[in-house]
Order: sequence, then C-alpha cells, then structure tokens
Amino acid sequence: MSSPTARRRGPYAGTAQRRQAILESAFEVFARVGYRSGSMRDIAQRIDIAHTTLLHHFSSKSELLAGVLELRDEYARPALEAEEVGAGLLRRLVEVVRRNQGTPGLTELYCILSAEATDPEHPAHAYFRARYTRIVAQIAAGLEDLAERDELREAVDPVQEARRITALMDGLQVQWLLDRESVDMAEQLRQYLQRLCVPVI
Amino acid sequence: MSSPTARRRGPYAGTAQRRQAILESAFEVFARVGYRSGSMRDIAQRIDIAHTTLLHHFSSKSELLAGVLELRDEYARPALEAEEVGAGLLRRLVEVVRRNQGTPGLTELYCILSAEATDPEHPAHAYFRARYTRIVAQIAAGLEDLAERDELREAVDPVQEARRITALMDGLQVQWLLDRESVDMAEQLRQYLQRLCVPVI
Repeated sequence: MSSPTARRRGPYAGTAQRRQAILESAFEVFARVGYRSGSMRDIAQRIDIAHTTLLHHFSSKSELLAGVLELRDEYARPALEAEEVGAGLLRRLVEVVRRNQGTPGLTELYCILSAEATDPEHPAHAYFRARYTRIVAQIAAGLEDLAERDELREAVDPVQEARRITALMDGLQVQWLLDRESVDMAEQLRQYLQRLCVPVI
Repeated sequence: MSSPTARRRGPYAGTAQRRQAILESAFEVFARVGYRSGSMRDIAQRIDIAHTTLLHHFSSKSELLAGVLELRDEYARPALEAEEVGAGLLRRLVEVVRRNQGTPGLTELYCILSAEATDPEHPAHAYFRARYTRIVAQIAAGLEDLAERDELREAVDPVQEARRITALMDGLQVQWLLDRESVDMAEQLRQYLQRLCVPVI
C-alpha cells in the first residue's frame, strides 16, 4: 500500500519538504512568466504533484505568492544580514538590485504585489507592512553607523533617509520594467548612495 | 419617440460629453473605493446610464482605467505645465504629491496600475511608457534650468536625476499606502528636493 502512495506523492513526502518544493516551483514559474501567467497547475505539474495536493498546502494563488516572497527574502538575506554595517550595507543594496535585474519576472511580481498589497484586505498586506518596517530599520541602522564613523557627506535623519532609499529602489523598478534599455537600476542607486556617503559605493 | 430616449440616455446626449461623464464617474468611483472594488455597474448607475451604454463607450474596465488616468493627468496638468521652470517646477511636484495624499483611492489605483502595466501586453502599457518619458523630460528640463541659473547645490545628470525624483515619488506611494500615519510623502519629497537646490522648496 505505502509504495504506490509514496510514488504518487513524489520524492518530497514530508509536509515541510513538500511545502518547500512547492514554493521553489512557484518561485521558478512566477520568476519566468510572472504572477498572472503562472498557473497553479503549472506549479504542481512541474514537481509532479496533483493540483489538489498543491491546494492542500496553499489554498490560493495569493497565499502561494506570499510564501514565494518570503522565500525570496530568505535568498536575499545572506546579502543583507551579515555583519555588514555602514558603507558595506549600502554596497549590498546595490548588489541586491543588480541581482533583481537578472530576474525580471520576479521583480515584476514583487512590484505588482507590493502595490496590490497596500489594500488592507489583501492576503500579503501584513507581510509587506512588516517587510518595509524591517528594511527601513535595517537601512537606518546602516546610516547611523555611517554617521558615527563620520562618513556621511551631510547629516540626515536616518529613518527618513532610509525610507527614501527604499522608495527609490521600488520606484526604479517600475521605470526599469517599463523600459529596460534606458534604465540601469543598480547604477542609479549606486550614484544616489555615493552622494550620501564618503566611502566608495 | 425622441423624448423618452433622451431621458433614458440622461443629460449627456453627445458622444463626447457622454464619454466625459463616464470618465468623471469612474474617476470618482475608483478614487473612493479603488480599482478592484469599483464596478462598471456602479459607474454607470452613478450617472444614470445603462450598463450596456457604458460598454459601448468603454468595452472593458481596463480601458476605462486608461481613460481615467488620462483625465487625472489633465487635472494635474495646470499644476505641472504652466511656465514654471527651475525651483517653481520642483515646488509644483511637492504640491501634486500633497494633493495625491488627499485622494488615496486614486493614488492606490495609479500605483497598482503602473505596476501591472509594466507587462507589455497590458492595455495601459503604452500610456505608462509615454507618461514616464514625458515626466522625466519635464523634470530634467527643470533641473537644466536650475543648473543654468547656478541654483543646484552640485552638478547632476538631469535625466538620471529626473528618473530618481520620479522613482522617489512612486516608491513613497507604496510606503504611504501601507502606513499612512508614519509616512508624509510630500514632506519627504520636499526634503529631498531641498537637498538638490539652493532656492527654498
């Protein structure tokens, strides 16, 4: 009895592994074709599980999406956490943006979802609120560190400036997605950050 | 025969006026409840026309949306066109953003739509590409004017800086929509622009 069942369930039998496999599949599919075009069926098929099994783990596409975004953050975490402070953190931001330029599908997905999720009823609303709070705090800490080292070109309010840097990164995505030939997000951000601090970014 | 027909068609008999009335109704509805929640039926009902009449003028919600955005631009035009140059133009940008803070529904709508429209297949794609080209050119001209008057604090590439200012405005919308108490878009922009130029913004 258990052998055909195990085969039907594929190689990821455990719930946690199954969940992880689904998220990675969704990540791939969304990053390649975007959120609207990526279907739950494609995501299930890609890892050889039934559509109903997928629905058991993620009851809606938007729930799956929230999971994918958390996974995306996990991937980006080594680049952003680290012991990096001050200019190092700012350099990492440029790296993250440069990497985003390599995954336009996922960047588009993030861009649309963050806009949709401004609606308090949206399933990813809490996630995005928490995400912005965390990112702004992280960048503000980096700026405070630069200030302590006396490496800022002029005094800034760390939190307000962190909000601007975050906004700049978000806004550049829209322009880049609309016209990839004319916009270099990473270089734009680098130039901006370079104007803020003395160390080379 | 003509009298009851005229009554059924409401006070806007001419095609151009009818179109304009529909757009203004859609503008109101989208600005109040957002794009997703605003229905074609509500928009028709509000100006007392049949749903089918609405569909005759705008065959889809996204088409209506593109029209609303053009109307929004028309409203904002007096603030942005004018003979304003240099610091005057930058002050106007702050005014426009302050006004956006008064219409959160429409701001959300714009924010979501600009993200969705990064998809080349989206009905508003061409509109948004053209819009960004125009806005960036307009702000770049303002910065060039400031440079000629020797009123910039430091040299900037006008087009690149115009892209950053535009990106900042867009990105702040997301953060403001997510957390209106903590973010003051207009003040954030003002502080940023003040750092760029000598005249008081």
